[in-house]
Formats: sequence, structure tokens, C-alpha cells
Amino acid sequence: MGKMTGYDALEPWIRVLEITLAKPSLKDNTADLDRILKALRKDGAFDTIVSDLSLVKRIPGLLRESGYRGEAVLHRADGCWHLIDFIPAGIQRPIYGLAVDLGTTTVVLELVDLRNRKSVDSATFHNPQIKTGVDILSRIHFASSGMDAVSELQKMVIEGINARVGEMMKALGAMPESVVAISVAGNTTMTHMFLGITPYWICREPYIPAANRFEGIKALDLGLAINPLAPVQVFPNIGSYFGGDLIAGILASGMGERSEISILVDVGTNAEVVIGNNEWLMACAGAAGPALEGGVAAIGMMAAPGAIDKVLIKPGTHEFTITTIGNIPPIGICGSGLIDLTAQMFIAGMLDIRGKLVLERCSDRLIYKDEIPHFRIVPASGSGTGEDLTISQPDIDALIRSKAAMYTILTTITNTVNIPLRTVERFYVAGTFGSYIDPRSAITIGMIPDLPLSAYVSLGNTSLKGAKMALLSRKAAEDASGIRDRITYLELNVNQEFMNLFSAAKFLPHTDTSLFPSVRRRQD
Amino acid sequence: MGKMTGYDALEPWIRVLEITLAKPSLKDNTADLDRILKALRKDGAFDTIVSDLSLVKRIPGLLRESGYRGEAVLHRADGCWHLIDFIPAGIQRPIYGLAVDLGTTTVVLELVDLRNRKSVDSATFHNPQIKTGVDILSRIHFASSGMDAVSELQKMVIEGINARVGEMMKALGAMPESVVAISVAGNTTMTHMFLGITPYWICREPYIPAANRFEGIKALDLGLAINPLAPVQVFPNIGSYFGGDLIAGILASGMGERSEISILVDVGTNAEVVIGNNEWLMACAGAAGPALEGGVAAIGMMAAPGAIDKVLIKPGTHEFTITTIGNIPPIGICGSGLIDLTAQMFIAGMLDIRGKLVLERCSDRLIYKDEIPHFRIVPASGSGTGEDLTISQPDIDALIRSKAAMYTILTTITNTVNIPLRTVERFYVAGTFGSYIDPRSAITIGMIPDLPLSAYVSLGNTSLKGAKMALLSRKAAEDASGIRDRITYLELNVNQEFMNLFSAAKFLPHTDTSLFPSVRRRQD
Repeated sequence: MGKMTGYDALEPWIRVLEITLAKPSLKDNTADLDRILKALRKDGAFDTIVSDLSLVKRIPGLLRESGYRGEAVLHRADGCWHLIDFIPAGIQRPIYGLAVDLGTTTVVLELVDLRNRKSVDSATFHNPQIKTGVDILSRIHFASSGMDAVSELQKMVIEGINARVGEMMKALGAMPESVVAISVAGNTTMTHMFLGITPYWICREPYIPAANRFEGIKALDLGLAINPLAPVQVFPNIGSYFGGDLIAGILASGMGERSEISILVDVGTNAEVVIGNNEWLMACAGAAGPALEGGVAAIGMMAAPGAIDKVLIKPGTHEFTITTIGNIPPIGICGSGLIDLTAQMFIAGMLDIRGKLVLERCSDRLIYKDEIPHFRIVPASGSGTGEDLTISQPDIDALIRSKAAMYTILTTITNTVNIPLRTVERFYVAGTFGSYIDPRSAITIGMIPDLPLSAYVSLGNTSLKGAKMALLSRKAAEDASGIRDRITYLELNVNQEFMNLFSAAKFLPHTDTSLFPSVRRRQD
Repeated sequence: MGKMTGYDALEPWIRVLEITLAKPSLKDNTADLDRILKALRKDGAFDTIVSDLSLVKRIPGLLRESGYRGEAVLHRADGCWHLIDFIPAGIQRPIYGLAVDLGTTTVVLELVDLRNRKSVDSATFHNPQIKTGVDILSRIHFASSGMDAVSELQKMVIEGINARVGEMMKALGAMPESVVAISVAGNTTMTHMFLGITPYWICREPYIPAANRFEGIKALDLGLAINPLAPVQVFPNIGSYFGGDLIAGILASGMGERSEISILVDVGTNAEVVIGNNEWLMACAGAAGPALEGGVAAIGMMAAPGAIDKVLIKPGTHEFTITTIGNIPPIGICGSGLIDLTAQMFIAGMLDIRGKLVLERCSDRLIYKDEIPHFRIVPASGSGTGEDLTISQPDIDALIRSKAAMYTILTTITNTVNIPLRTVERFYVAGTFGSYIDPRSAITIGMIPDLPLSAYVSLGNTSLKGAKMALLSRKAAEDASGIRDRITYLELNVNQEFMNLFSAAKFLPHTDTSLFPSVRRRQD
């Protein structure tokens, strides 16, 4: 991330200052707190400094035990500096920040040493709320099942974070109080639940979040077992269907700061698309996701060990070369594998332009189960499950509908801003999906536009990256807020025009092959 | 208080705005909170508005039950507006503020309707901390008697306030949440205890308070049973011996805004003196108090029913006319009565210029107890106790030492700023003491300078008045902070010069009678 470097030079959001105070005397009976503030003001960078009462209560003891020397920890918010801790000299306490990608399925933590801005540890775990429902809707349903249900959901995720931070601190031999800031990016519903705010109206027409910005929150307000006064920086939402995770993604991509026109795509439960540059940003979201993530196919799975992630079909011999994550016998197929497979089968003539299995070219790999045609990718002898790994015609149909939805969303948003899709200069793909996908294959099936491969950039976990940037740089945190205000959200109307575009995109790669000049079907 | 009117016209610290919101629709899916903020911003007066998470959680419900109409309650602090409540339309909820005079002995509350700025109710009660010790030192001692002792002291006074506010609300048929702001003025130790901050270092050399300013405090931080987000405005201290009650007094007097040079005197356990004008302010404090308040004499008492508050000795006949508070038979004497008595006895020649009883002029009123001369003010037959009410020579000596200390403090502070005491244009006397005292008598004994009687202004409870002003006006609250910063605190050194001044002041009215031209002793 070249972007990080740009923010590195800028003023951080959290500051740690070593101060040595004159000891009080009859000639200088400045109050304890004022003594600290006076020393800080000498630095010049601090205008208004406010101090929480809970810290003021501890100051007299801290000053006297430290010999009036130590480090003041401050953070900037609401136009003031907030004194959040005083670390007595002699105590070698590290200063950490925690970046959080608050996913519906997975929560990822990254612990950063705020003194040298280096990552120290990380953790990934399933969002404990999953036990109340795997998808967002079932969690919102649970949230309205009782008086305290929202608090319960909040507690689940907070305790999940607390447990991992506790383990990290134990391993580092540090106190949880060493974590003095946390930055969190999640979708609108996850953000509401993290804060204990009802998500009830998010999924009910006209789909209204309780709030889009969350300010002045401290760790103790949420029960986070870190420094109680640690500021909780929460990425703002645009609305019910466009959350802080996407704002973090835009921040991480840097697309909002460059003049070139870029697209950012994040594929999860929904496909979220942002287009724009340093002058304007437009976003939309639509249902395109699960099939692309491998979530629909019977043998579909997340990108995890044993998942087929790459497929190559040798011209002429139709010999299959597959690779799996972790190089172990295959047990299923992930989204990128499925896109690779479909692209390769299309090139090899095993799928026609409608995405239907071409019986005569599939030879003995074609089998029927309950009269439904299936294509055998790996025979039982070679699989990790001891059974054939097959994909059905309906599985392929689902994938094609999803890729068509994605391409239609891309076409719709570019049509709206009157910019031809093929003139987009940079195409960012966020998320795990983006890390594994082969753009060549995605172009081949007509899921993404036929841009030069160099235009495609995989960004990895942009939600976590954005959260980390905002943790380290005050400017980045402010930019996140600015990005939020600049985005125009495009409500996708599934009208006749959308359906026409969708129908045209349901072909491999498209009814209009001139849109995909690089895709040449092999006719061996 | 003409001063109040000046602040009345200025922007208040708490604002209540009626807002009617457009209902959400698919065309306008602004988040609930943003909908409120957008309506508020239309008013133009609000720049940054922050909202506490606990209120954000309630907003979705409040908006829908109110039909999107209601009153927003905001307060200004740290350069932002804080949204602290939303009152749904149809609920006729009053908006109250509470001014608090947090005295060591007595706590006084005044409830103000913030809609029309009128007083609604008031309450006076003994500071419940008295059970741990009547004076400040014994309470500081108690505060360090155990881990939770400070919290206990805090709880006592908070619960005392909660009980009275509860009674007031019950009588008014209002909810405690209706109280949306509280303004508190107390001395440094009382302020620390009210906030749960240790006062340990206040009474130990070099006498350091934990803090002098207290910002960003909410009712819920202290356990106050009012609106949990109600801001707690606490008057700043200057130092250990000069607290927020005095700042409130200066604010209430208005002396810091006029060009004329004034003195403000507040007599309590200590005598606190401020001199200055709109350009400069100097303050000092010294031990002069208890005897002036009637706290030393055997029959001394607070100004309460049955206390002798005025004494007149008829020339020639030496007939005594005494009045008591409540016009009931006398049971003791309060500070003002003692000053009156001493002045009248001096005029009548019953006391000489050294304050000694003149045996031949006291006739049958002179009695001896344990060989100590006593003066009978009221015979047993006329007293409410059934016993003689007498004052001893040592009681009179104590009063004279106190009045001499007061005059010496006044002389010292005026000498320091090089302004002759007799040229002071206005002399404010704060507190209950000021309400009862007869300036003529105080001049006669040489306690205060011989200014025209019109220069003396009794202000009553300035601590409460200042707290009320800061409750109603943002400018007043800011001025309080400005006054704090402008004051130079003069440390009284009890050196040879002070002792010389003190010795000269221990006469009635003074060794230098030219300082008191209006005092003429009757030589009948």
C-alpha cells in the first residue's frame, strides 16, 4: 500500500508525549492536572485539551508515584485533544492500536504498535453472532426477539474481540490498557450491533439506519477490555446498504484522491461497486454475490485449505490441472476456482455461449444425477472426500446469473455517469475474493470488463487496511468522513432497462462480443 | 441583580428547539439521527453537533413514537453542541436547570425553568458529609481513611441532592429527566469530593488540588438522578484555598466587568477577599472567620430563629433593645448580633479601645464566672433558654482578633496593589453573614473600612447566584472561566509587617483613628 506512506508523514490521531514536570512547591502550587496540561501546551500542537473525570481521579497518584515524569497519551476528536492516559516514567508500557474488520462472517483484528507504526499481531475469528444466524437478516430478526437482544448481539462480538486481545496481550506480556485506540470498519448492520444500536429499521422499508456517524465513543461505553478511555473510531455509513467497510475500502484504495477514474468492487453477500475519482464518487450495491463466492454450488466452499482455486484445461488433450489452497487433495471449490473452471470450460468448448454443458465435448466427465447433468472435475480417486467432485448445470447457471448481475451493475453505474466501462483506468477488487480471483478468467466469462490486465489491482482486506490507516493517521480518519460526504448513492432499480442489460450479460462472455475483444474461444 | 438582565439577552448554554422532520421514504432515507441534525443545522446557530451513544440508541424509538416531531435539547461545551435529549411532541415536559451552592455546612439548590428562566423551587439542607466531620480538615481526613472513602463522601452529597430533586419533581409532577443541566459552585475541597476526586493533597504542603477545571462531565458520571446526559457545569478553582464558590461570587457581583475598583468579601471558615475591576483582579484568603460568624462565643450560633441579630443600647439610660431572628425569645447570638453588640458597647463606653469591659460602666450586667468577667446581654427571665445569655471577655477578645485579621487582610491586599483602602468605590459582602451584618456596626469596630454606607452592598448567596447565572447564560459560564484566569492569588505571608498591621487593628476601631472619622465614641 503506497497509500499508507502518504498518511505516515501526517499528524497522527493519537499522540504520546514524554513530559517532565517541575515538582509542586509553595512557589508553584499549580494543580496536578494543570501541571500536565501546561507541559503539553509547551509543545504548541495542542489547543484545547479535555480530560475525562476518571483519569483526573487517577492523576494525583500517578504524578506522585512517577516522580512527575511520564508519557501523556492524547487523541484528537470533535476539535479538541483528549488526555486519555498518563504512563509513569519507568514503566515500559507499549502503546497499541487495534484495527478491526467487523465482518458478518469473519472478524479480523490487527494490533499495531503506535510508537513505530508496525503490526505486532493479528487474529481472525468467526463473528460469534453467527450462532444467532449466518446472514444479516436473521441477525436483525434475532435483534428484535427481546428487550436485551441487541445488547446480547453486541456482547457476543465485544467478548469475541476481548478474548483475542486478551490472548495477544498475554503473549506480549502487556496490559490490556496498553491498547489506547481502536478503529472499526463494518457494514451498517454490524456497526449498529457493535454499538448496541437496534438494526430494526435497517431492513424495513424505507430502510433507515439509526445513525450514519458515531462520535465520541470510548472503549468503556462498549465494554471493550482495553484502555477504558481509548477512543473508538467507527467508520461512518452511507446508508442501510452501504457501510463503513466500503468507506474503509475506498480509503485503502486511494481512488478518492486521484484524478484517474477507478472502479472498486467488493464481493460479499452483496456486490458493492464504487466509481469515481478525487472529484466525485458514486456507489451502488446489488445482489450478485453468493454464487461468485462459491456459496451456491453443492461443492462450493470458502477459500480455505482443500478448495480448488485454479483450474487449467490443456488445449487438445483436455487434460485438467487443478491446484488447491494448501496443496492438499481437493475437497471443494471456491469462488475463484469456479470462475476459472467456467472460463476454461468455455474456452475448451465444454460450455456454449449460453453456459450450457456441450455434451459431446465433455466426454466421460459428464454424468447424470437425478437426470440433471453434472460435470466431474475430480474423480473420487483423486479427491480429498473420497467422492467425485462434480458441478451441476444449475450450479453453472447460478454462477452465470451472478456474473451477469455483476456486469449489469457495472454497466448501469457507468451508464449513469456516462463513462464507457472500457475507459475506466483502474479496477480494484477488494476482499478475499479479490485476492484469489484470476482477472483473465473473470474477463473470459464476462463478469468484469475487458480492460488490460494491468488495470486490475487486488487489494486484499481493504476494510482492515482502511481501519488501520484511520488508526494511524488523523488525516486518514478525516478523509474517511470526507469520502462519506462525497459519495452519491445510486439506488439500483430493477426495471426493464436493467433486465435487458442483464439478459444480454447472461451469455459467455456477452451477447455483444465486441465488448470482449480479448476473449477468443478455442475451437480445437 | 441587575447583572442577570445583562446575561439574559445572551445566548444560553442550553437550547431547546422545536423540530418537525420529514418522514423517511425511499426517496429520503436519511438516518434517524442525521434527520434530526439536518433540521437543527437549518437553524444556523449550530456548527458541530455530537450525540452521546446512549441517546443515539433511543432515537429510532423516539422519532417513530413522536411522529417525527419534538424538541431537541442541546448544550454547548468544548466548542461543540451536544444533543442531550429529544422530547417527543405531545409530551409536555418541562426543561429545568439546577443551580447548586455546595457549601461545607449547607447545600442550597435552586430549580430554574429554562424555558422562561424563572425560579420554580429551592431547597436548603445540611451537607450530609457533616456526619464525617463539621470542618473541611476532618472531612479530608475521613477521605483518606479507606479505599472508598472519597466515593462515600461523594455519594453522601450526591444522594442529598438526589433526594431533594426527587421531592421537587414529585411536587411538580415532573420526571427527574426534566432536569437537563446542573451548575455547581463550591470551595475546592467540596468540589473535589462532589466529583469523587481525592482532596488528600489539598491540605498538605504545598497544597495542590488535583485539578482546577472540570470539563465534559455528565450527570451519569456522578450518579446524579437527573437527565443522565445533563452537563455538569462546575465552577473552576483558583487553588486549594480559593474555590469555585468565590468565582461564582465575583461573577454574581459583576465587579470583574466594571471599571470602578471594588472589593468583595466572603466570610466563612476563612475570610476571602477579592479586589479589582474589569482589568485586574487580586484575591487572598485568611483565617478571620469563625468568631465573626458567632462560632467562637459560648452562646454563638448560626443566623437562625432565636439568634440575637441586632442590638441597640439607648444613650443615657443604657437600655438594651435586642431583636432576634423570627422574633422569638433569644437563645444565642449570631455573627451580626455580636458585631452590633460590640459596636454598641464600645459607643456606650462599656468597652474601651482595647475591647476590654469597662467595669464601672457595665453596672449590674457585669458578672464573674470562674473569675472571668462576663457581660449579661439578656437575663434568664427574658431568654429562651431560661438562663442568662452572657458574653465573656475572651469571647470579645476572639471577635476583636477576627475583625483585626479581616481589616489586616484588607489593608494588606490594598497595600499590595497600592490602592488606599478608603478609595475603594464599592464593597460587596457575600453570604448569609453579609445579609445580616450592619455595615455601620462593622465600621464602628473597625472590621471594614470607613466608606460611605452607600458603598456597601450585601449580595446574599453569591455562590448560588453565580451558579444560576452560569446555568442560564453561556456567556456567564465563559466569563466564570475568564475570571478564573484573570485572578492573581496573593499568598498572605504572616510576616512582621502583617503582625504590625494586625496589632494596630486590634483596637476599637483602630490605633489610627483618622482612618475611621465617622466613628465617634459617645462619652455620656
